[in-house]
Amino acid sequence: MKTLFLEQDIKYDGTQLAPHWIYKNFKIQCDAIIAFKGECEVKLSEMVDIEDVLNNEPIYSKLMLHFISEQFNVGLVEGVLRQRLLICIIKEALEKRGITVQRNGDDLFVGRKKLTVSIATKSLTSILIHTGINIDAAGAPVVACGLSDLGINDIEAIAKEIMTCYSNEIDDIILATTKVNGLWK
Amino acid sequence: MKTLFLEQDIKYDGTQLAPHWIYKNFKIQCDAIIAFKGECEVKLSEMVDIEDVLNNEPIYSKLMLHFISEQFNVGLVEGVLRQRLLICIIKEALEKRGITVQRNGDDLFVGRKKLTVSIATKSLTSILIHTGINIDAAGAPVVACGLSDLGINDIEAIAKEIMTCYSNEIDDIILATTKVNGLWK
Amino acid sequence: MKTLFLEQDIKYDGTQLAPHWIYKNFKIQCDAIIAFKGECEVKLSEMVDIEDVLNNEPIYSKLMLHFISEQFNVGLVEGVLRQRLLICIIKEALEKRGITVQRNGDDLFVGRKKLTVSIATKSLTSILIHTGINIDAAGAPVVACGLSDLGINDIEAIAKEIMTCYSNEIDDIILATTKVNGLWK
Amino acid sequence: MKTLFLEQDIKYDGTQLAPHWIYKNFKIQCDAIIAFKGECEVKLSEMVDIEDVLNNEPIYSKLMLHFISEQFNVGLVEGVLRQRLLICIIKEALEKRGITVQRNGDDLFVGRKKLTVSIATKSLTSILIHTGINIDAAGAPVVACGLSDLGINDIEAIAKEIMTCYSNEIDDIILATTKVNGLWK
Amino acid sequence: MKTLFLEQDIKYDGTQLAPHWIYKNFKIQCDAIIAFKGECEVKLSEMVDIEDVLNNEPIYSKLMLHFISEQFNVGLVEGVLRQRLLICIIKEALEKRGITVQRNGDDLFVGRKKLTVSIATKSLTSILIHTGINIDAAGAPVVACGLSDLGINDIEAIAKEIMTCYSNEIDDIILATTKVNGLWK
Amino acid sequence: MKTLFLEQDIKYDGTQLAPHWIYKNFKIQCDAIIAFKGECEVKLSEMVDIEDVLNNEPIYSKLMLHFISEQFNVGLVEGVLRQRLLICIIKEALEKRGITVQRNGDDLFVGRKKLTVSIATKSLTSILIHTGINIDAAGAPVVACGLSDLGINDIEAIAKEIMTCYSNEIDDIILATTKVNGLWK
Repeated sequence: MKTLFLEQDIKYDGTQLAPHWIYKNFKIQCDAIIAFKGECEVKLSEMVDIEDVLNNEPIYSKLMLHFISEQFNVGLVEGVLRQRLLICIIKEALEKRGITVQRNGDDLFVGRKKLTVSIATKSLTSILIHTGINIDAAGAPVVACGLSDLGINDIEAIAKEIMTCYSNEIDDIILATTKVNGLWK
Repeated sequence: MKTLFLEQDIKYDGTQLAPHWIYKNFKIQCDAIIAFKGECEVKLSEMVDIEDVLNNEPIYSKLMLHFISEQFNVGLVEGVLRQRLLICIIKEALEKRGITVQRNGDDLFVGRKKLTVSIATKSLTSILIHTGINIDAAGAPVVACGLSDLGINDIEAIAKEIMTCYSNEIDDIILATTKVNGLWK
Repeated sequence: MKTLFLEQDIKYDGTQLAPHWIYKNFKIQCDAIIAFKGECEVKLSEMVDIEDVLNNEPIYSKLMLHFISEQFNVGLVEGVLRQRLLICIIKEALEKRGITVQRNGDDLFVGRKKLTVSIATKSLTSILIHTGINIDAAGAPVVACGLSDLGINDIEAIAKEIMTCYSNEIDDIILATTKVNGLWK
Repeated sequence: MKTLFLEQDIKYDGTQLAPHWIYKNFKIQCDAIIAFKGECEVKLSEMVDIEDVLNNEPIYSKLMLHFISEQFNVGLVEGVLRQRLLICIIKEALEKRGITVQRNGDDLFVGRKKLTVSIATKSLTSILIHTGINIDAAGAPVVACGLSDLGINDIEAIAKEIMTCYSNEIDDIILATTKVNGLWK
Repeated sequence: MKTLFLEQDIKYDGTQLAPHWIYKNFKIQCDAIIAFKGECEVKLSEMVDIEDVLNNEPIYSKLMLHFISEQFNVGLVEGVLRQRLLICIIKEALEKRGITVQRNGDDLFVGRKKLTVSIATKSLTSILIHTGINIDAAGAPVVACGLSDLGINDIEAIAKEIMTCYSNEIDDIILATTKVNGLWK
Repeated sequence: MKTLFLEQDIKYDGTQLAPHWIYKNFKIQCDAIIAFKGECEVKLSEMVDIEDVLNNEPIYSKLMLHFISEQFNVGLVEGVLRQRLLICIIKEALEKRGITVQRNGDDLFVGRKKLTVSIATKSLTSILIHTGINIDAAGAPVVACGLSDLGINDIEAIAKEIMTCYSNEIDDIILATTKVNGLWK
């Protein structure tokens, strides 16, 4: 899996969660995870999560660290498992910086404050994951906090660390399938 | 997924990681995770992990909390992802008890001391996972620690909590696949 | 699998056979089968069955008992098999009421009169099945009969019985995969 | 799928439910269903159905019509669905001869008397199905009846009819996957 | 797999690479490969190959022999493998006519001149392949040659031979999966 | 995919076609293809190809260039396609050296003389391929020729070239699945 941190900010409005968006925009043609900073505003009409649409819960955050990952030839159950692993790795990167974080499925919380949003879905040829971590949670529709509140200011460093860990662990998981005897009885 | 904590101890020697072992012994006929306490001694001839065999690394621990899970109609890549999720949930159960734990793939460490062993593999109809958490790591072939060292003595309580969280999260992951719009473009 | 009988009638025009239609309209977020009564008029432009389009065979029936089922993470061959099972279960529910029914693939006949229409197809995340049983076959483009002609007037009762049997049998099929030794030689 | 009725009787003891048994013995190298008559005695040590083993329920019948089917490149859930379809087709063949039959999963009953046994399982490259219909149920461990009791004596004719219907319907199911528009929204 | 050579020319503009195009236009309802002659002009807006779009490389050839294949219930990795096999079979048909051809992935060259274009992609229920062999490469945007340059004028004969070989080999590949012992150890 | 040419000769007797044989013997833990020279003698009892067993056709050749490939998390139909691709690549390596070769499925011939043997099969976690090219076909049970007869003496060079081309093309095939728009209509 290739990784890329984008220098320029991009406002995330949901249209970035699209098949081949990474390839078309950044010429990375394979399984990839990229990160960038930007405002986050996803209107109901752009929402992939039907639960949020039914609950009339649009997403907003003044500034987020966004991750987009596209992984090909994977089913959706496996895609959601790969999303959960990304969330666990983000949690671990925060723990290394002394932050205590609680995970609830694909959400991370610091105390009762929500730190992240995330979704995983499927295209015809791939699964796609978006995870956003609040940097400045101003305007969020729920009680939230951001990396700035937690004293984490080197966004690029933590983004790259998360992407490297994630890429390495996906490789390691594939490798783990190649070293075990199957069980007959 | 059904869960069961066994009152009686069982020495884990590797033969318990077998298709339908849970069903044949405890009459649970579906996806399941069970837990029990017992010595752990896996000889090279019973090892599923070929890497350990090649490195001549048998497993021993005087007393462990063991988890065995069998999940049907799942491929091995997804099986390893489901194993990694179990490891993350064990880590979180320890964190709730104030223990700081580091994860490295499917291993948990407290400081530099190894707390767990784990493997995931495949039978013709299922994937199978074993994870053992040291209670008393005496005799372990590596620098290790156990739940006793960490002041965790209510083994049954933490075992049940881990199994409940794991079962709930697997259900939640399946549910997450049913609420998202697929992506056309 | 969850089941639901809708009190209100809905005219079936083909747009109900859509991913997440059940979830969006009735808040059932998982594998499900629902039933309702209503006129049936599917124009060629809404038809999923290309064979019917090529043969210029729109569907009409004055009043039908409709079943819609959405089942996630299933391929289309398996989806058609699950459709055929639903047809067999409908046939059996009629037999319990003393009606002799002939099955031909996914069609049911009483004598030479056609009783049902059915289709199974695929979305990005699920398979979807529609089966309609004539209640009053007036206006049908082929020689047809309906439940009223057969003296079956408690539509809700038979609908619920069919859905319960179907839901139970799908569960039973999954369970059947968990109790068999694989074959080595 | 190829079909074959064997003239010679074979005692079914469970060893016939093996990968490539059809190919090795009858040179049919593809998806196939074959039928033969013979005593049926499956000891616990040869049983594929662990539920029967746990319940200590060996199988016996003095004379049965046996079907063995091997179908390649199919998963076990789909294999059980294909088994259920075979059971429905056997039921329909009996109905054409005026017999009223009740189905309960993969079992057929005439009144309260059990008519059939069946199992579906998996090898590394295929799924395998055995279904036996009592001809003379003498010695059966449960209340049972046979085709002789039902006045059906032309065993070869009904066997061939069942195999032809089954083979045709499996072909028709594959064909049904090729004629439907997928659903985008 | 069914095969068909169309007598009439069709200009290939990319819209022919669509699910059920063969079925809707030629009533062949199953895995199929068809061939026809015609101009080839694929604009960027109709291109399936994002690489070509990014590189701003539309496709043009004055006259091509086109193959379209649709194969159902197949994943995309397997679909690309099936495409590569088609390319190898085209190469072999040319070799039988004394032409030396070099293959590079899914492209064929005679010397340094490009002879073919090809793409494989996926719909909801199938994989689709287009391969075009230049007959008269006039207007091609790269250095190219055509069958006319190579002295091959009986286009229908070579098209039918290629389709027959391809259809037979796909059947043979499925058959090859039914004759091998699985490996336990 | 990793590649390795072994300096030492190994007699191929069929036991080398085993899951993890490459990993256990050469410490390559991932998809791999290795090559070595050696006598080839596969007795019927070690044969994976049931067709050869039924036809009583053991394999012998005095000296062969052997390829063994193990590829994980792949089904058998795809495994046979990957085998056919290897055969095509071997054919192309010979063509670069001026040899005219005919392919018939997974067999290569020079004129009427058989040059190769090959099989693809499945373990619980992988597919495995063996392909042997005669170097000195003495003792072969059919009319055969070898690389020596064709003037090819630098076995290591051609082996490495074949493995590199094969490894690159498998990578390229995966890459080809990541660059195409799926087809909606």
